[in-house]
Amino acid sequence: MSISEQSLKKHYEWNGKIEVITRCELNSREDLSLAYTPGVAQPCLEIQKDINKSYELTRRSNIVAVVTDGSAVLGLGDIGPEAGMPVMEGKCALFKAFADVDAFPLCIRSQDVDEIVRTVYLLSGSFGGINLEDISAPRCFEIERRLKEICDIPVFHDDQHGTAIVVGAALLNALKIVKKDIGEVKVVINGAGAAGISIGKHLMNLGVKNLTMVDRFGAIYAGKPENNPSQEEMAKITNLEHKSGSLADILMGADVFVGVSAPNIVSAEMVSTMAKDAIVFPMANPTPEIMPDEAKKGGARIIGTGRSDYPNQINNVLAFPGIFRGALDCRASQINEEMKVATSHALASLIPDDELNEENIIPSALNKDVAKVVARAVIEAARATNVARK
Amino acid sequence: MSISEQSLKKHYEWNGKIEVITRCELNSREDLSLAYTPGVAQPCLEIQKDINKSYELTRRSNIVAVVTDGSAVLGLGDIGPEAGMPVMEGKCALFKAFADVDAFPLCIRSQDVDEIVRTVYLLSGSFGGINLEDISAPRCFEIERRLKEICDIPVFHDDQHGTAIVVGAALLNALKIVKKDIGEVKVVINGAGAAGISIGKHLMNLGVKNLTMVDRFGAIYAGKPENNPSQEEMAKITNLEHKSGSLADILMGADVFVGVSAPNIVSAEMVSTMAKDAIVFPMANPTPEIMPDEAKKGGARIIGTGRSDYPNQINNVLAFPGIFRGALDCRASQINEEMKVATSHALASLIPDDELNEENIIPSALNKDVAKVVARAVIEAARATNVARK
Repeated sequence: MSISEQSLKKHYEWNGKIEVITRCELNSREDLSLAYTPGVAQPCLEIQKDINKSYELTRRSNIVAVVTDGSAVLGLGDIGPEAGMPVMEGKCALFKAFADVDAFPLCIRSQDVDEIVRTVYLLSGSFGGINLEDISAPRCFEIERRLKEICDIPVFHDDQHGTAIVVGAALLNALKIVKKDIGEVKVVINGAGAAGISIGKHLMNLGVKNLTMVDRFGAIYAGKPENNPSQEEMAKITNLEHKSGSLADILMGADVFVGVSAPNIVSAEMVSTMAKDAIVFPMANPTPEIMPDEAKKGGARIIGTGRSDYPNQINNVLAFPGIFRGALDCRASQINEEMKVATSHALASLIPDDELNEENIIPSALNKDVAKVVARAVIEAARATNVARK
Repeated sequence: MSISEQSLKKHYEWNGKIEVITRCELNSREDLSLAYTPGVAQPCLEIQKDINKSYELTRRSNIVAVVTDGSAVLGLGDIGPEAGMPVMEGKCALFKAFADVDAFPLCIRSQDVDEIVRTVYLLSGSFGGINLEDISAPRCFEIERRLKEICDIPVFHDDQHGTAIVVGAALLNALKIVKKDIGEVKVVINGAGAAGISIGKHLMNLGVKNLTMVDRFGAIYAGKPENNPSQEEMAKITNLEHKSGSLADILMGADVFVGVSAPNIVSAEMVSTMAKDAIVFPMANPTPEIMPDEAKKGGARIIGTGRSDYPNQINNVLAFPGIFRGALDCRASQINEEMKVATSHALASLIPDDELNEENIIPSALNKDVAKVVARAVIEAARATNVARK
């Protein structure tokens, strides 16, 4: 049976990958009078007096909403909110399994930005954090930006930031191996949607200075007519030599390639034009921009993909569970750039120097200690930047 | 320690009365590839082809949203969505403990009817049913009516219908004891808000013909200037003699009193003016319209209250878990009047004739078999009225 068939069979068996259970006894009259009426009036009144008590007297301190409109689900595109649910439930299950975060899926039947923002805001008092998921660009940028402005709980679009953070960690360790300075390497990112732009911004926050973004119209430069507003914003701080040209043109002499675009669009020949000790992260899923064996043929020294069947899997499950664990534990009001940068460094630090090699630059996605280390780093960064409320 | 103090202490210990857990293993690469990418694409595509598959391939078939705006929480009034959360979590815990329904609280930061309706509608694809809770009248009527029109899943305002259904069951059994015909008894309901009006409608659906509603302005009759639209609607089918007067006036000669109003407003003397074998259900919480001992003094034969420390507790936990269990199991598109009537009869039937007496007209709220019997009755009624989809 193929993975698809097996997964379908399993989904019928599971009948849902998450479940809501009770944390209190409800067997006696006394139980009922404490968990429900009349006793429950007292915790209600405490929260009415001090809204922050909702974090102690309800589950809010451990609950994250996983929110989608079903517009960009996996590589399947706009399949609608109900059809996106299996992915959202999977995400919720990962939150619980990797970081003991209670996550609940909210699939919204609207693709209108105002309506999505308003819906999430109206419910934000029920949650300790908001994880946006599989919302198409450029709407996802505005939705995240506006929600961050009006909500006093962390809002995080994992498709943008999760991947960026893990790519960042992989890059930090890869650069240690090839002994290049992050401030001096030439980085090319192919794909300038939500993920590509977020990766670009994050790598710059980590210290990258020479970055060029490329999309299907070629290198992105300031003032290019095809640029959308997010691309234009990036163009102003990247591609400082204002180059135009195809991906093949731009790749020449580059130290690092990051792909979040389409399968098989990079050849071994193109890789061979890159600088010595090239670092190649082709992350299109399930088929990368170039298969690892081909990239090797082209001379790449370090290769990371989204796939679990090759070394160096760049999987955002390394980031989001620990980030929210940390943000919830210190009751952060937001997840800021410093917390994301700290996460990349924490992830990179999980590979000790004496274990670091071309095929081991990033922890395994199955390593359940990762979230604890990430959470600690996130809490430290939140406190250092005064966004922790506890 | 008082119940309030004990409850508060317990709430700090519980740190939430519900929790979201996983139903799938996530320990190996294979687990991840089945529950998440790449395998999860297949169940997504199946739902995209046939939206009804969301009931089989996700948890939707067992999940109910418990929705409030925090405007009428318990007897505490408008305490806000966050402060209402302990009650909503308690409700969710009861759903799980009594009927294995997964329930999740959604506390909405708006009291605008349009906005509440839209918010719930936009999320309705994530749930198998909607339980509205502690929303103030008259907004709750319009919210429920409009949601029922636009949602294809059951929408049920428990404060209205839950109490009505259990009162109905208690009345059916009480009438067996006093050997009076439901079509001939004179019933007085004091309190004409959401609960009172819903009880009135439901008792009429059960066969009551002679009903008078009373509120703080006295008996409600058609054309009375103080009537709100819901009261005027009821006035057209009740109080057919068009009587005005105080509760004391109207109670004279009545067979049944139902109170959902305020503490201590009925005296033993008032009860003594009622017909022989009077049935008295004073349900104001925690202090009823008349204490059971006083009602006895006035000559009441059968007394039921909302309290667990007296016989005949009229508790809506007898209704809502089983109603949703049944509605979910037959995938009902709505919870209609026939299903509510069937629930009252099912609850009444749980007391065998030879156990029926003045102090035993309704099952114990702790009896966890009740929900199964209710669910069966609900499914039968749903099928008989063609609202079952399974």
